[in-house]
Amino acid sequence: MLATVIHAARDIRVEEVPDPELSGSGADAIVRVVAACVCGSDLWPYRGVTPTDAPHRIGHEFVGVVESVGADVEHVKTGDFVIAPFYVCDGTCVNCRNGVSTSCVQGSWWGGSDRSGGFADGGQGERVRVPLADGTLAVVPGPVGDDEIPGLLTLSDVMGTGHHAAVSAGVGPGDSVAVVGDGAVGLCAIIAAKRLGATTIIAMSRHADRQALAREFGATHIVEERGDEGVAAVQDLTGGIGADRVLECVGTKESMDQALRSARPGGMVGFVGVPNGGPELPVRQMFNRNVGVNGGVAPVRGYIDELMDDVRSGAIRPGRVFDLELPLSQAAEAYAGMDERRATKVLLRP
Amino acid sequence: MLATVIHAARDIRVEEVPDPELSGSGADAIVRVVAACVCGSDLWPYRGVTPTDAPHRIGHEFVGVVESVGADVEHVKTGDFVIAPFYVCDGTCVNCRNGVSTSCVQGSWWGGSDRSGGFADGGQGERVRVPLADGTLAVVPGPVGDDEIPGLLTLSDVMGTGHHAAVSAGVGPGDSVAVVGDGAVGLCAIIAAKRLGATTIIAMSRHADRQALAREFGATHIVEERGDEGVAAVQDLTGGIGADRVLECVGTKESMDQALRSARPGGMVGFVGVPNGGPELPVRQMFNRNVGVNGGVAPVRGYIDELMDDVRSGAIRPGRVFDLELPLSQAAEAYAGMDERRATKVLLRP
Repeated sequence: MLATVIHAARDIRVEEVPDPELSGSGADAIVRVVAACVCGSDLWPYRGVTPTDAPHRIGHEFVGVVESVGADVEHVKTGDFVIAPFYVCDGTCVNCRNGVSTSCVQGSWWGGSDRSGGFADGGQGERVRVPLADGTLAVVPGPVGDDEIPGLLTLSDVMGTGHHAAVSAGVGPGDSVAVVGDGAVGLCAIIAAKRLGATTIIAMSRHADRQALAREFGATHIVEERGDEGVAAVQDLTGGIGADRVLECVGTKESMDQALRSARPGGMVGFVGVPNGGPELPVRQMFNRNVGVNGGVAPVRGYIDELMDDVRSGAIRPGRVFDLELPLSQAAEAYAGMDERRATKVLLRP
Repeated sequence: MLATVIHAARDIRVEEVPDPELSGSGADAIVRVVAACVCGSDLWPYRGVTPTDAPHRIGHEFVGVVESVGADVEHVKTGDFVIAPFYVCDGTCVNCRNGVSTSCVQGSWWGGSDRSGGFADGGQGERVRVPLADGTLAVVPGPVGDDEIPGLLTLSDVMGTGHHAAVSAGVGPGDSVAVVGDGAVGLCAIIAAKRLGATTIIAMSRHADRQALAREFGATHIVEERGDEGVAAVQDLTGGIGADRVLECVGTKESMDQALRSARPGGMVGFVGVPNGGPELPVRQMFNRNVGVNGGVAPVRGYIDELMDDVRSGAIRPGRVFDLELPLSQAAEAYAGMDERRATKVLLRP
């Protein structure tokens, strides 16, 4: 089959790889990928920020149809349309039961070894062997229309991740919320904040096309300024004190600083941007103003069922973050387009 | 009148100072101090960790009786028995209304200038001028028995601060809670955790007398180990994963590290230990395990009314943290006793 392989920085190839097969575990499934996409975090190896020592599969967001299942798989059936979160989980361990399936004791990641030593394909390919299929895959009931696919695909990562930022920050009815980052996750965080009842939603964005989408998703205000001016602009919109909740959806030192200082005393920062390079948090600044920080790698598997109905009904439209669709064979162009900011998020069709 | 003055590290004197007088603001009150105490944070200047450049008043925890009030004071009356929180606040600004009275826009601290330029005495003295008396002081209704005074005095700081750790960590019914720190605040955090419904409460303590008080307050387990062994011991008591909530009541790099690693994936650290020297928080470690950090300088004024009934009824007995009582004239011995860990917390009687 064909699958995407990263060979080095800026060297993305779609090439022939072995077809996946069911392992002897009895717990896995083979999924034919209907749609996959490129994540902002895929750009770190693409840009060489994280090194690529040897060629490896890449991609961790996909939806598809189950082609076969192991003998012990109970909930997922051949022919089911499924959403895969960006990680593997069993759904039954104590951490999964606590809502932190990204810390599953049997968990693993796409494009690498699962806990039993088998290989789980990357998501940007024609097929994927899915370990722990009952825990990992969410089944979408009934027939799935082609126009539903972009929205459902966002539940594999970006919509659930934006939701996690909002949940972690404790967004509730009547809150003021500032969102740092206007990538796909930041835009989905706006959807999540509105869905949870926020009434003032400030998108910190400098790009006209993303500002427009932010407004469509529920942003009530746009702030283009950054640093001290950005903090002042958020304060001006929030009675002089800062936002009740701030959603940090980037992961740099600058974005976290912007988030912490944009929160009001007693406010909370929900953070989901992968910390890039390890800036640490200024504990004294947090202490003096009672600004908390909560979040992390988003346990999106647990959010899929909650969000799926709103996606299918059209109540929320996260699929709008895809502004380019390409065949899988053009994966290299998908990376280049996102890297050069010609596209917010690219959908790939095998 | 007599008041405590710190002249330099380990140089605490009780000396004659000017009697306080009502300012022209109309909003202040003069309180005759009935009881005051020494805070763990008073030990930082005492030990020279924070420098004392010039002699200044010290002490920020006291209860007393109102002797006179300014013309515009409405809620506090001459003769009222009052509790002062460890800071001054107006009770009406947006931050106070948001429950963060430690960030009051008119706020100030004992032993320094208030926002109008007047002097607010330190708490360890015979009398105190209290700015913004209506916002700052909590009135204790009815006659106050002498045996009630230790418990009521803890509401000026340590009981409210321990409660803030528990509230910030989101402690609720059935939770497992680990408490890092066995000083007065840590011991009060145990009371708070039990009061909020925690069922497993792990006190991390190496001192037999404090362990005994921890158990009296509701600790179900004691862990003497620290570092990796401490983390392992907490995990052993919590199904192998760590505590749902961890209350950090010290403020050192080591104690915060202990707290972060003792929390389970998806857990929350409530922190109230004054960060000592600025260790920063490891954001990547927090991200990978979804461990949040929330808390800060505790807005105890807002907790006094909520906790007062339980203190007066005896449902909680935080006054037990006082294990030494001295006349004000022996303030220097009070500091020495706490510094040398001969006492957990010392009550001073003018």
